[in-house]
Amino acid sequence: MPGAGRAAGVRRLHPQPSEEPPAQEEDQDLLLAAAYVSDAQYNRNVPFETSPRAIRLYYFYNHWTMQVAIYFFICVDLSLALFEEPALFPLPFLATSIAEVLCLTAFFGRLVHFAKVTPQMVFWKDTKNICIMVTIVLTLFDLIIYGSLEAVNIHSIRWSRALRPVFLINFPESRQIRRTFRSIRNTLPDILYVFLLFVFSVLIFSLMALKLFGDRGLQTVEGLPYFTNILDIAFELYVLVTTANSPDVMMPAYNFNWWYSLYFITYIIINTYIFMSVFLAVVYNNYRKHLKNEIRKLAYLKRHKMIEAFNILKVKVGTEFVVTEARWKQLARIVMPHISGPHLELLLRISDEGQKGHVDKMNFIRLADLLNIQVVTINIKRHPLEDWMPRVYQSSASLLVQRMVRHRIFVWVYDVIILINAIFIALDEKNPFISYAEWLFLSLYIIEILLKLYTYEPRAYFGRKQFWNWFDTLIIIAALVATVANTTIQSARKYNSQQILDIVLILRILRLLRIIVSIQRFRLIVTTLINIGPTILTFGGLVLVVYYVFAIIGMEAFHGKVQFFDPNFTTPNALVCGNPALKDSAFARERYCKNNFNDLASSFIVLMELTVVNQWHVLAGGFALVTHQAAKLYFIGFHVVVVILIVNIFIAFILEAFFVAYSLEKSEVETAIEKKIQELGVGIQEEEMQDGKLVDNMDAKDGGFSGDNGDNKRKALKGLYFRIASKKYRTVDALLQQMFESEIAPEDEGPSLDEILNFSAGDVYPKNPNFENSA
Amino acid sequence: MPGAGRAAGVRRLHPQPSEEPPAQEEDQDLLLAAAYVSDAQYNRNVPFETSPRAIRLYYFYNHWTMQVAIYFFICVDLSLALFEEPALFPLPFLATSIAEVLCLTAFFGRLVHFAKVTPQMVFWKDTKNICIMVTIVLTLFDLIIYGSLEAVNIHSIRWSRALRPVFLINFPESRQIRRTFRSIRNTLPDILYVFLLFVFSVLIFSLMALKLFGDRGLQTVEGLPYFTNILDIAFELYVLVTTANSPDVMMPAYNFNWWYSLYFITYIIINTYIFMSVFLAVVYNNYRKHLKNEIRKLAYLKRHKMIEAFNILKVKVGTEFVVTEARWKQLARIVMPHISGPHLELLLRISDEGQKGHVDKMNFIRLADLLNIQVVTINIKRHPLEDWMPRVYQSSASLLVQRMVRHRIFVWVYDVIILINAIFIALDEKNPFISYAEWLFLSLYIIEILLKLYTYEPRAYFGRKQFWNWFDTLIIIAALVATVANTTIQSARKYNSQQILDIVLILRILRLLRIIVSIQRFRLIVTTLINIGPTILTFGGLVLVVYYVFAIIGMEAFHGKVQFFDPNFTTPNALVCGNPALKDSAFARERYCKNNFNDLASSFIVLMELTVVNQWHVLAGGFALVTHQAAKLYFIGFHVVVVILIVNIFIAFILEAFFVAYSLEKSEVETAIEKKIQELGVGIQEEEMQDGKLVDNMDAKDGGFSGDNGDNKRKALKGLYFRIASKKYRTVDALLQQMFESEIAPEDEGPSLDEILNFSAGDVYPKNPNFENSA
Repeated sequence: MPGAGRAAGVRRLHPQPSEEPPAQEEDQDLLLAAAYVSDAQYNRNVPFETSPRAIRLYYFYNHWTMQVAIYFFICVDLSLALFEEPALFPLPFLATSIAEVLCLTAFFGRLVHFAKVTPQMVFWKDTKNICIMVTIVLTLFDLIIYGSLEAVNIHSIRWSRALRPVFLINFPESRQIRRTFRSIRNTLPDILYVFLLFVFSVLIFSLMALKLFGDRGLQTVEGLPYFTNILDIAFELYVLVTTANSPDVMMPAYNFNWWYSLYFITYIIINTYIFMSVFLAVVYNNYRKHLKNEIRKLAYLKRHKMIEAFNILKVKVGTEFVVTEARWKQLARIVMPHISGPHLELLLRISDEGQKGHVDKMNFIRLADLLNIQVVTINIKRHPLEDWMPRVYQSSASLLVQRMVRHRIFVWVYDVIILINAIFIALDEKNPFISYAEWLFLSLYIIEILLKLYTYEPRAYFGRKQFWNWFDTLIIIAALVATVANTTIQSARKYNSQQILDIVLILRILRLLRIIVSIQRFRLIVTTLINIGPTILTFGGLVLVVYYVFAIIGMEAFHGKVQFFDPNFTTPNALVCGNPALKDSAFARERYCKNNFNDLASSFIVLMELTVVNQWHVLAGGFALVTHQAAKLYFIGFHVVVVILIVNIFIAFILEAFFVAYSLEKSEVETAIEKKIQELGVGIQEEEMQDGKLVDNMDAKDGGFSGDNGDNKRKALKGLYFRIASKKYRTVDALLQQMFESEIAPEDEGPSLDEILNFSAGDVYPKNPNFENSA
Repeated sequence: MPGAGRAAGVRRLHPQPSEEPPAQEEDQDLLLAAAYVSDAQYNRNVPFETSPRAIRLYYFYNHWTMQVAIYFFICVDLSLALFEEPALFPLPFLATSIAEVLCLTAFFGRLVHFAKVTPQMVFWKDTKNICIMVTIVLTLFDLIIYGSLEAVNIHSIRWSRALRPVFLINFPESRQIRRTFRSIRNTLPDILYVFLLFVFSVLIFSLMALKLFGDRGLQTVEGLPYFTNILDIAFELYVLVTTANSPDVMMPAYNFNWWYSLYFITYIIINTYIFMSVFLAVVYNNYRKHLKNEIRKLAYLKRHKMIEAFNILKVKVGTEFVVTEARWKQLARIVMPHISGPHLELLLRISDEGQKGHVDKMNFIRLADLLNIQVVTINIKRHPLEDWMPRVYQSSASLLVQRMVRHRIFVWVYDVIILINAIFIALDEKNPFISYAEWLFLSLYIIEILLKLYTYEPRAYFGRKQFWNWFDTLIIIAALVATVANTTIQSARKYNSQQILDIVLILRILRLLRIIVSIQRFRLIVTTLINIGPTILTFGGLVLVVYYVFAIIGMEAFHGKVQFFDPNFTTPNALVCGNPALKDSAFARERYCKNNFNDLASSFIVLMELTVVNQWHVLAGGFALVTHQAAKLYFIGFHVVVVILIVNIFIAFILEAFFVAYSLEKSEVETAIEKKIQELGVGIQEEEMQDGKLVDNMDAKDGGFSGDNGDNKRKALKGLYFRIASKKYRTVDALLQQMFESEIAPEDEGPSLDEILNFSAGDVYPKNPNFENSA
């Protein structure tokens, strides 16, 4: 296999925000146009003033350091709850309040900065800004009152802490979270009537249960009276909707008479299955509707900005307005300072198809999309060993090794080794033979990696996009470190840290994940899941906000009511979680004492358990016993908000992400770039790049590359290959926007700015639904 | 309000299967064409022979008595499980086996009938027929073996009982259930790899749990060792995916160390939320894809049949082929023997637009759709009282009463009465004052109905489509009967039947449902739910099949292992459900003894509880204890089939039904009919017909009606109003088909029959997905 040693160094040109305002000699127009293009590229929709000073401030406003700083302060502000009473790590009130004031100052500074950039009118009309200001004022107010009361030893409530997520939601960068909230708000009217009907249905069934079972003298398993109080019945039946007390709630009636099970089956079919599905349908339908509307808005706004930029830079050549090549290049360099020469040249060749020395309006509008497409520049390089000792590397023994490593059987052999390893892990490790085997497996894995590095070019093997190679290697290295650490600890026997040992154990098992790498179908599923990762993360932000608010309220209401004692501690007090009110309760019987609201971390874990739903009624019952029956409303509220609304939105998210991923095609702009890359003969098929096959295919293409290269433009690109980066890490948003844009005619300038901003979801509905659309 | 007494008698012309083959003198061609049209109308896709005898047999095959008979035998066959050992109502083996042989004979007879109708080749190629035959043979075989063994007192297994649902699935009428099964089968390859990856993930986490917690010496709440056996861990973690043992499974580790909760949270996010959503997405996506494909197939087959029918009846007039008016009418009368003259006239007027005396091809093809649209014929009639005593009925006092009843406040007053009634029901009924109040409420309700009947024309008020009026009246009458029965029982004190008393109580409470009628938004939601009712019923058939198979297997495996004793019976044996193996088990502790497989009804209830998921692991654990740990596989299998596959398909069903309902418009054919109705001046707007407003609007239209009616065609229709029946009771299928048909050009004859039958789901995917489609 000649030339097998040659390999590719992969470098990705990721578009980055322009890091500094360009030098003074650049003219203001160019700077303004670049600001528009940059906004279009990142879908920022901040109206800014066009005075030179405002533009400079705007560049500064969008600078990455400013964004990192503001996120840092948001994190600090949110994490203050860890240090405030009831604290996980207590700090004095003075320290936390100083930190909070610092954060508020930073938020206020950011707001002032924004006010300088944007027109006055727009600033004061924007509810986001008003929200932030009101929250700052309220927080300060609360701090002062709380501080002064604390000074005279009166303990009051820090209610403003529940407002902190407002900062996370309302800064312009959290567009996705805001959209989800808007989507929830828009869904409310539709869902309200369904919810009322659902409540009505639960009440009717409660009345029936009271009449049917109230006078029978039945008892629950715990010996309590069964279904005698209408409020208790309504709560039990609400719990049954969440399925958390099925079938226990039915058993006394069912034991009494076979026919009563029909009552419960009817109830479950109507309220659990049908109503819950209707909630999902309503939430999902609204989510879709509003998503579509917002995407449409974004697409038109983007085009609007690009037209603005074009109008600033245009000059008349012949009969049409165009942007000259020089200006276009200046612009691109301002928007993306780190763009490489060949990449810029490639983009220009696409935008200026006829090589006329200027870019026309239609091609100019595509610039933002062109910059957004990640083009990977690949430097073809030979294996370093081939350079250092070509004789040895090309010897027949060496070639045999390389061929062996590339063979399928090599992968299968290692799969078998991993499986044997799994069995060894499951066996008892106290056996010395097994702990020796551990070293054997580890050395086998390291040999595998060394062989691969010998066969494939190292920089190509560890290219930026070679996710699976990285994954493989990191897991082995981690396992190596872990095993060494484990042995050191075990032989030293002096320091035996629980945490380190646990990490060692986990890493050793994670090594088994390598088997995913070698099964193509598994890898595909995991890749799809990673693709929808960013979408799920947005969702994580939403959950964080809701959890935070509920955790703060929960801590104020329930902290200290339930105490956790060491599980080996069996005094009567420990058995009732330090609260006599819990005597004989299911909460104490199930030993749920650690599920309390005594600090932020515990609260989050309780909320997580409530989200999973099972046994939530036991938790609710416990906290109702130590406070008041009305406490159940807190738990019901959490269920309605999180399980009925948010989990359904999560399902809508995932369904939508999957459907979009299924109907995905390359965009028109990507196709243009790819065509150009192929035209220039510097392309590599994406499939060839994937996975271990990388280097093999590089060889196969090599013959074609050393062929004719007469074109003088092409010389600039020589020595490099390009390819479109894979579709990983794209969001559903981007995909939808791309789809919508492919439906707007290139000449269409869209509606006016005012019209765009006033789009309503109703407009998006197709007038004539078509078959593909609905089924 | 003059003329208020006039009212409308509503008669619906529902298309019905032709009840008898037409008289001998009808020519064979017409009969054949009518068979095609009828098949197109009902979407039957049975290829039948075209010989006169075969056609006659085919008519008989489709006769409603035959269909009722076959469903009767299927019901008998399925319900045999109630009478066979382990029986709810035991019957001797001889009786049930004779009944079964009878059923099998009926099925075989139906099959022979079908074989006579359809070409030999088609018959033997059809897997449905083969399935039925094999099942009949197997069942007979099993019966004989079981019977002979029983005769020598050896007890064997009646395994063929699990095959009985095959008859329900495979008879041509169960197309929807078969489609769902096909959809599941098609989904399997896609879902299999996700499932394997999911199992792999559970196993990796199990290994981790073993290493992390196995040596800690932790204990569960019951004092059992915690996470020490890999198989137990894998089962517990599978249960955690279903959330049934959350948070109990986490508590020992969480109590031991705070950090271990992270392990469980990671597990829940990955396996419960992400994997379960992916299952839903995969199932839903496949469901959609295959649904679309089948609908396309059906639409083309329908067109194909109509073209066949046209080709049989066509004659050449001028340059084009047409069907003469006389033949067209004969055809329509054969297909729909009970069609009314005016209705037929209306359809002809639509099909023969230019009144040329013949129907061209395009209009002929629409015939099946025209017949499928339910046109309501309304006879305008005056209130009977107006006829009998016009003076009294039109007197000012009478008119005042009528105006009062029509007023909004009348509705509100009754809503308030219902609410007060609800409070009275919730209160203790032993108070004599309250039981007198009961009579008061009842008389108020009866007065309401009498007043309404006085104001509105009775036949219109109880029209076929006046769902809410029927609902209202039936509930009141039932409540009246119930209350009278209740009082009789209470005063007699001799016969005190539990069942009757329960029914009385339920009916009294159901009366409160009347409040839904008066809140418009509630009524809308309920109407939507009723619209998707047929879809949900299909789904019920699917669930019945799966439940039946699992129930039979469960009865064979577990019957008699767990006994139920009276709850007041507290001997040690009763406390362990009659099986010492259950000592100290959660199953016995929670008193689940009645959740057993000792007869069909109990089995169904257990399966229902397993479908609801909560506590399924306790049930599984109990049955594993009394048999073998491998019994858990039965429960895991049920969970995978029912919860992961079928419940997800149910959700897909509901989501799809909602989306289709949202994007619903009138079909082109409906529009044509409505236009014609309006042209002829005999139309009534649908909205006006709805609900109580019926008669008011009838008056308002009256002026227009008594206007000019010069057209001689119109005279035939005089005295009647028509309207398109509301969209209630339409299935998702029909809607999708209608949407797809609107996309085929009227001239398009579709692909050839072979091509249609070989459509694959892949073809349906849009080549260029559009924005509306995906978002």
